[in-house]
Amino acid sequence: MTLMGVVYYPEHWERAMWEKDAELMARTGIRVVRLAEFAWSLLEPKEGVYDFAWLDEAVGLFHEQGIQVVLGTPTCTPPNWLTDRYPDVLPVDVHLKTRFAGVRAHRCYNSPSMRRFSETIVRKMAERYAGHPAVIGWQIDNEFGLNECCCPHCEARFREWAKDKYGSLESLNRAWGTVVWSGTYSEWEQLKPPLGGTAFKNPSYLLDWKRFETDSVVSFQQLQLDVLREFCPGHFVTHNIWSYPMALDYYRLCAPLDFASLDYYPNTSKEKSVSSGYGGALTLDLARGIKRRGFWIMETISGPPGCWFPMWRTPQPGFIRAFAWQCIARGAEAVVHFQWRSAPVGAEQFWHGLIDHSNVPGRRYEEYAGLCEEVNRLSGTLDGSEVAGEAAILHSHELYNAFQIQPQAEGMDYFDNLKLYHRAMTKLGILTDAVNASEDLSGYRLIVAPSLYLLDEERAKHLEDCARDGATLILTNRTGVKNDNNVCWIRPLPGPLAEAAGVTVSEYDPIGGELHSMVDKHGNSYACSQWCDLLTPAGAEPIAWYDDDFFAGQPAVTVRKLGKGRIVYIGTIAEERYYIELFRALADEIGLTRLDGLPEGVQISVRSKGQKRYLFVLNLSRQRQEVALGGTFESLLNESRVGPALTLEPYGVEIVAWT
Amino acid sequence: MTLMGVVYYPEHWERAMWEKDAELMARTGIRVVRLAEFAWSLLEPKEGVYDFAWLDEAVGLFHEQGIQVVLGTPTCTPPNWLTDRYPDVLPVDVHLKTRFAGVRAHRCYNSPSMRRFSETIVRKMAERYAGHPAVIGWQIDNEFGLNECCCPHCEARFREWAKDKYGSLESLNRAWGTVVWSGTYSEWEQLKPPLGGTAFKNPSYLLDWKRFETDSVVSFQQLQLDVLREFCPGHFVTHNIWSYPMALDYYRLCAPLDFASLDYYPNTSKEKSVSSGYGGALTLDLARGIKRRGFWIMETISGPPGCWFPMWRTPQPGFIRAFAWQCIARGAEAVVHFQWRSAPVGAEQFWHGLIDHSNVPGRRYEEYAGLCEEVNRLSGTLDGSEVAGEAAILHSHELYNAFQIQPQAEGMDYFDNLKLYHRAMTKLGILTDAVNASEDLSGYRLIVAPSLYLLDEERAKHLEDCARDGATLILTNRTGVKNDNNVCWIRPLPGPLAEAAGVTVSEYDPIGGELHSMVDKHGNSYACSQWCDLLTPAGAEPIAWYDDDFFAGQPAVTVRKLGKGRIVYIGTIAEERYYIELFRALADEIGLTRLDGLPEGVQISVRSKGQKRYLFVLNLSRQRQEVALGGTFESLLNESRVGPALTLEPYGVEIVAWT
Amino acid sequence: MTLMGVVYYPEHWERAMWEKDAELMARTGIRVVRLAEFAWSLLEPKEGVYDFAWLDEAVGLFHEQGIQVVLGTPTCTPPNWLTDRYPDVLPVDVHLKTRFAGVRAHRCYNSPSMRRFSETIVRKMAERYAGHPAVIGWQIDNEFGLNECCCPHCEARFREWAKDKYGSLESLNRAWGTVVWSGTYSEWEQLKPPLGGTAFKNPSYLLDWKRFETDSVVSFQQLQLDVLREFCPGHFVTHNIWSYPMALDYYRLCAPLDFASLDYYPNTSKEKSVSSGYGGALTLDLARGIKRRGFWIMETISGPPGCWFPMWRTPQPGFIRAFAWQCIARGAEAVVHFQWRSAPVGAEQFWHGLIDHSNVPGRRYEEYAGLCEEVNRLSGTLDGSEVAGEAAILHSHELYNAFQIQPQAEGMDYFDNLKLYHRAMTKLGILTDAVNASEDLSGYRLIVAPSLYLLDEERAKHLEDCARDGATLILTNRTGVKNDNNVCWIRPLPGPLAEAAGVTVSEYDPIGGELHSMVDKHGNSYACSQWCDLLTPAGAEPIAWYDDDFFAGQPAVTVRKLGKGRIVYIGTIAEERYYIELFRALADEIGLTRLDGLPEGVQISVRSKGQKRYLFVLNLSRQRQEVALGGTFESLLNESRVGPALTLEPYGVEIVAWT
Repeated sequence: MTLMGVVYYPEHWERAMWEKDAELMARTGIRVVRLAEFAWSLLEPKEGVYDFAWLDEAVGLFHEQGIQVVLGTPTCTPPNWLTDRYPDVLPVDVHLKTRFAGVRAHRCYNSPSMRRFSETIVRKMAERYAGHPAVIGWQIDNEFGLNECCCPHCEARFREWAKDKYGSLESLNRAWGTVVWSGTYSEWEQLKPPLGGTAFKNPSYLLDWKRFETDSVVSFQQLQLDVLREFCPGHFVTHNIWSYPMALDYYRLCAPLDFASLDYYPNTSKEKSVSSGYGGALTLDLARGIKRRGFWIMETISGPPGCWFPMWRTPQPGFIRAFAWQCIARGAEAVVHFQWRSAPVGAEQFWHGLIDHSNVPGRRYEEYAGLCEEVNRLSGTLDGSEVAGEAAILHSHELYNAFQIQPQAEGMDYFDNLKLYHRAMTKLGILTDAVNASEDLSGYRLIVAPSLYLLDEERAKHLEDCARDGATLILTNRTGVKNDNNVCWIRPLPGPLAEAAGVTVSEYDPIGGELHSMVDKHGNSYACSQWCDLLTPAGAEPIAWYDDDFFAGQPAVTVRKLGKGRIVYIGTIAEERYYIELFRALADEIGLTRLDGLPEGVQISVRSKGQKRYLFVLNLSRQRQEVALGGTFESLLNESRVGPALTLEPYGVEIVAWT
Repeated sequence: MTLMGVVYYPEHWERAMWEKDAELMARTGIRVVRLAEFAWSLLEPKEGVYDFAWLDEAVGLFHEQGIQVVLGTPTCTPPNWLTDRYPDVLPVDVHLKTRFAGVRAHRCYNSPSMRRFSETIVRKMAERYAGHPAVIGWQIDNEFGLNECCCPHCEARFREWAKDKYGSLESLNRAWGTVVWSGTYSEWEQLKPPLGGTAFKNPSYLLDWKRFETDSVVSFQQLQLDVLREFCPGHFVTHNIWSYPMALDYYRLCAPLDFASLDYYPNTSKEKSVSSGYGGALTLDLARGIKRRGFWIMETISGPPGCWFPMWRTPQPGFIRAFAWQCIARGAEAVVHFQWRSAPVGAEQFWHGLIDHSNVPGRRYEEYAGLCEEVNRLSGTLDGSEVAGEAAILHSHELYNAFQIQPQAEGMDYFDNLKLYHRAMTKLGILTDAVNASEDLSGYRLIVAPSLYLLDEERAKHLEDCARDGATLILTNRTGVKNDNNVCWIRPLPGPLAEAAGVTVSEYDPIGGELHSMVDKHGNSYACSQWCDLLTPAGAEPIAWYDDDFFAGQPAVTVRKLGKGRIVYIGTIAEERYYIELFRALADEIGLTRLDGLPEGVQISVRSKGQKRYLFVLNLSRQRQEVALGGTFESLLNESRVGPALTLEPYGVEIVAWT
Repeated sequence: MTLMGVVYYPEHWERAMWEKDAELMARTGIRVVRLAEFAWSLLEPKEGVYDFAWLDEAVGLFHEQGIQVVLGTPTCTPPNWLTDRYPDVLPVDVHLKTRFAGVRAHRCYNSPSMRRFSETIVRKMAERYAGHPAVIGWQIDNEFGLNECCCPHCEARFREWAKDKYGSLESLNRAWGTVVWSGTYSEWEQLKPPLGGTAFKNPSYLLDWKRFETDSVVSFQQLQLDVLREFCPGHFVTHNIWSYPMALDYYRLCAPLDFASLDYYPNTSKEKSVSSGYGGALTLDLARGIKRRGFWIMETISGPPGCWFPMWRTPQPGFIRAFAWQCIARGAEAVVHFQWRSAPVGAEQFWHGLIDHSNVPGRRYEEYAGLCEEVNRLSGTLDGSEVAGEAAILHSHELYNAFQIQPQAEGMDYFDNLKLYHRAMTKLGILTDAVNASEDLSGYRLIVAPSLYLLDEERAKHLEDCARDGATLILTNRTGVKNDNNVCWIRPLPGPLAEAAGVTVSEYDPIGGELHSMVDKHGNSYACSQWCDLLTPAGAEPIAWYDDDFFAGQPAVTVRKLGKGRIVYIGTIAEERYYIELFRALADEIGLTRLDGLPEGVQISVRSKGQKRYLFVLNLSRQRQEVALGGTFESLLNESRVGPALTLEPYGVEIVAWT
């Protein structure tokens, strides 16, 4: 089943409107609503006083309409009575400034009061709705992020965390290299949160602090998860992550959950009208990669976002539909739009819903209603189908954090480069998974591994084995620089992978924003920037060379055959065109499934079920586009046959049974 | 009488210089000086110890020279003994950081100590100078603004304020929609100032907080006003406001005063040499509109400003004179230049006076002396004349605050748009008042009402009535969005005015910085940006249509005849040229007084007395300009006749008896 | 002797690596290492527990290799036990935020704890190494700067400092002009640090606060110096300053030291590849000017800097060598590179050393080794030679601070203008000293005195006497504006020098970023910006005039003959070309030594010993350049003869015996 849903806040509206809303939702084809994730102050208006009557009523109304319910635990918004009476709930930043109430996410994950009251309200909700026939699952909290909280509770927990990890101060001092700048700890009490927030702190300590912070979130979530598992064994439990890049480690966060959910807001502006689709494709692939299975879209765009920033443009006609299909094409099992109707009150007044404040359904609602009809119609066909990539691109929150702590060169951004590589794959129509850089990669035929900056021997061995077993492994600059303690290897780069890659870096030049040039073996010239590793092959063959500056003529890219596969090392960041040429050649050599000749803005994706393959062709641009399908296929949308030339209107969508 | 004056600080100078200064002032034609508004530490050097001898002497010297005195109450600068012994005087910002002493305006309006000592020093001054023959009036404090003070006293007063307004927490919770994000208050103690200062807070609460802040200033002023009214019934009392846009509500601030005063510093830079004159025209019209009568200029430019920022350019020859005449042309009854001579000491050393530190009178002094001669000569003629607009443009600090709290679209700025409309009116030579959007508008023939975002039924009715009675009412996008609680209406836009305007907004697109195009019924094309309301006429006639994007062909501007008048609705922000064409056509249809063909930078204004009309023609540009007067008139400046073609030198001024 | 050295941190490396490192250093030609300046936590791992064994061992190893040792006192990095147990060590900023541990330079100079523990650790080190044969001298702390510390200890010391300076509050109030804005102090307790940090504070107070801050650093240094002088009378003592411009007064800081040291990191980026050499020339001339003698380079570039900012580009081939020679050419007696090898741990991991993390010596090491060979070979020849300028450019940290407190015009930057004048001198090949503006200037033939804004009668007299005795004295705008209290003179500009210069400023215009034009007596036109003084000659002759705006035709530059010399007054900031033309003419009239026709990026310098003169010709650019030497000379580098045309490769260096 592919479920269409909406976010709804009964508490924002007069009671008299609820029934009409539920009826219209049912008529529109909506199958699920998310409720209550910010409603703590209504559910527990005063400490220990609970009121579920209104929520019972709302859940009941949806049940009557055949609409299923996902309940949010309301711990993102501790109410005023809680923060006022138990101020330890409020986080404290690196400058010791309190994050005051009146907003959301104003809660310290390690606060004893926050943990106690969270456990209780979740237990009350779980007890009450465990057996309700409409309720199918739970969203814990909302859009977790790191807090950078430096309160005494976090400080104490951090010390315990470090003791657990390192055992002794001697060991910790050695691992972090605290001797630099006299940072040696002689008593555990000296270990503090990163007060002051400067970039001058020890990078090993800073990276461990980020790990501790992720662990704090995970532990806070687990507290709730334990309750839900106990009372609601039949319900799924998920969390709605938001956005990339992200310091919080989503892989560790989602490990104990049933599936990941994503809040997805593709940018509506004209200048991002194309890039937004490619960035979105990566985000969706990442969301699917978290648990390596289908996921939910728990929020997505229904109108212009805005409020604490100027409103975005309204979605163009077709935009809402096309991006919802993009989610499904890349693995979403449910698509929940945020939200049913724009809120008349509060801080999200201009984060628009499907229906405007006027409560007169308009263009966006009509488009959404059509979308519901389509999805519901195809839901049976798609049921059980899955997205499976032949190629993988590796991603890591740890690497993101490490590069945030120590920027390498002007303009060199870990996640932007990931986008660059993924966009090239997407434009080539290569079916790509985006997966955790530390997971098992067996079976992938092409592995793009950007900047594996933190790399230990064991992991290097796995990657080498993948290549030996037949994979084409693509490494880039800043690979093998450090061990997991964020301490530099005293060995030639790319460190633990130097031997396997058959190349070492004799020297590097952080060229930053400067544009330089490189030339490949066909004599084609490409711009490169950010970084230049000057390569000394030791077994590898150069396949591109720098073409200017003092390192003109030195190898920039090498390839080494290894067992049944090979390792490519790219010492610089080239323009997109280079990756398209390189990846195309590599993919074609190893015979990856592809669709060639995709116009700018058009993406494909494939969902497979047994022998069946459903090809999604999405025009995420404002221009009409032509796609060569390479054959004639049955359209799932309108039962006609389409191809070999397929014309897509702006934001047009086609889905075919692909043979 | 039109009075020329200067600001003078006897306390900055050796006693020996005072007499010479007073003599030269008298010789120059100066009629009034402002004294003492920062002199608390001299008047009360220690707690309870007063010293008025020096001020007696200074006031006496001016009296001898026939110069009148305006005294400032010194409460903008609490002295060190006060802030040091009573630290509650110092404001505390949203991050709980103290605004420390050593500056100015470092005083909390709700501080009990500040209020007590302010009341006392004002009483001492009032008692002493109530009967002095030189003293004619008072300026309370200096350039009030909002504090955003979050000290415990403000917190407590805010709670009282909210109790007074809402009666119960239930009522407050409902009015503000606190249910969003669990913000419900269950005890009054939970109600706090906006600590943390983020844009994520509840917009209804934030707007009320601004109202409370204005009320705090008003109350602090009233404390002093009560003393002055008691002791000095024969003196006027004013306050010198500074600059627009402004979060503090000047209308409420000035309500109990005799007249408003303005500190006016037109920009001297080359790139603002034209825009500065138009922005200034609006500022002056606003100042006149505060009390709908003549006002004082309490400070204006005498040389390059500077100090805590790099100095501006020096005023070009003619600049000081021309902008002083602009003040008078638009309603000033006195023009006080800041200041006599540049201070040799302290934080304002480079906020230059008419005479430089050298104490050698130079070019600027000479120009000023000539100006005094002119103004004194014409003073009798102009005495009793008034500025009265035929058109009105509506302005509101409330709307400004509401848009600051929730920016609508990239580049959409309430006050900048106000300037745009006013500039078009000024370039057309339409005589325009700028008035409080909540006042009675009877009698105006053309009313420009930009973005009446907060709008209740009663006010909508008044506007509709004005139209029915014959006015042309111009509405724009973002009209009728919310009620006074900053809560959205659940009805089609423009909300309470939709029916009268004969149009609804089916959808809107916050296009922000993008340039789009619209076309009028003559086929003329205009750029538009910021926002597009897509209009559905229901009684109104479209008169312009969008010309691109998915809404091409949809109405952008409509007009509806209503009773003896009409309502124009403009759904976007067009380029200036559009407003000039539209307003010209409308003004000519209803026969407004105008002077056509004004060159860029040239402004007119009219002061009337009975049947007499004095036309001011000001060239506020660096170029020589020609103006077609449409006849020959007597010049008030040199008793010649001028016209029909009038040549104005750069910064040239002409004043004629206009028939 | 000219010493080559490196910075080395034995504590960063396994003990096993030390010997190999020392051996390789000796083989490379390294004569000196700096050790231990951040090692407090190893030397005193707990309060009162000392461990010198590791340092003994390291010093011993270097001694065995014949390498001399400079020891740093480790007070820049108080260890965790110290800051944790004695929190008064940590500075507190103007917003009362603590500068927390975990960084460096986190110590209040006035903290009693910091002073006590600093004195003790320095005494322990001094006792231990006073007699060690390898140790030759000391570096106190590291890269001192002002703290802006507002802690209670600083507050109390500031009050004492002000009492010492002014005696009474009456005197202080008068000197600072506190009467402005009611800032009068009536009790000493009211005198505070500049809390809040705003630009609205009294400028006289702010300048004295900077003076107090310098005195705090000087006093903290003196505490250590007293110990070192007592225990190590045979050792030199220095401090490594960093960078210009600087609020800390280096002249006062270095007065009690044996010589100044400089940390010198010329910029490697392409866009600064030329300006960096000229800026560096000024920095080196300033370093030499501090004590008017030879100095040490205590750190200089070995590879890409980076860490808390994105890495710079790697030095181009030849860059390390050329800039090391630039140091020697301009007076360095030792050049210590930072550092031997890039640190694998800690906050400076990417502030690269000569050898990369890989520990494989590469291109940069090879270049450095060649440099060591050259320098060691020439060391005997250059021994005893000195750099002596014929011209002087005046510099002052006081003026820098005064202009920071009150920026004069948009884009007018005291130090940038100093660079402009110095660059013109450098391009003309004029041998220039950069000296403290308050020192004796007898003997200089050309004195460039930029913006002597703070100027008293006595100093004016000295400058006038220099001119009368034959010097050509060049004054600029903003001369003679204020007395030393930062209070404006009440007299025509240039104040105390107006009579001698034979010119007054009738008016000025802070034109800021606008480009205007001036014309010299040959009719050549030049752009000018920032500021225009309109000059009224009174004895001086105009030699350039403004050519636009309302002051067109008024004098911009004047010259007045005075005794055997003359005074030039330049009322604006012209483009570089003007200074080149003006200085060339003046220099040639008075017969200064010069080398004409230097290409962009090529610099010369001369070291003299008795009758011998060694000419350094440095190509600090990325282009090959031709220089006309005007004769044939013996090269010191390769014993060939070079000239009259000399070709220099990119970053090429030549040194000849100049006749």
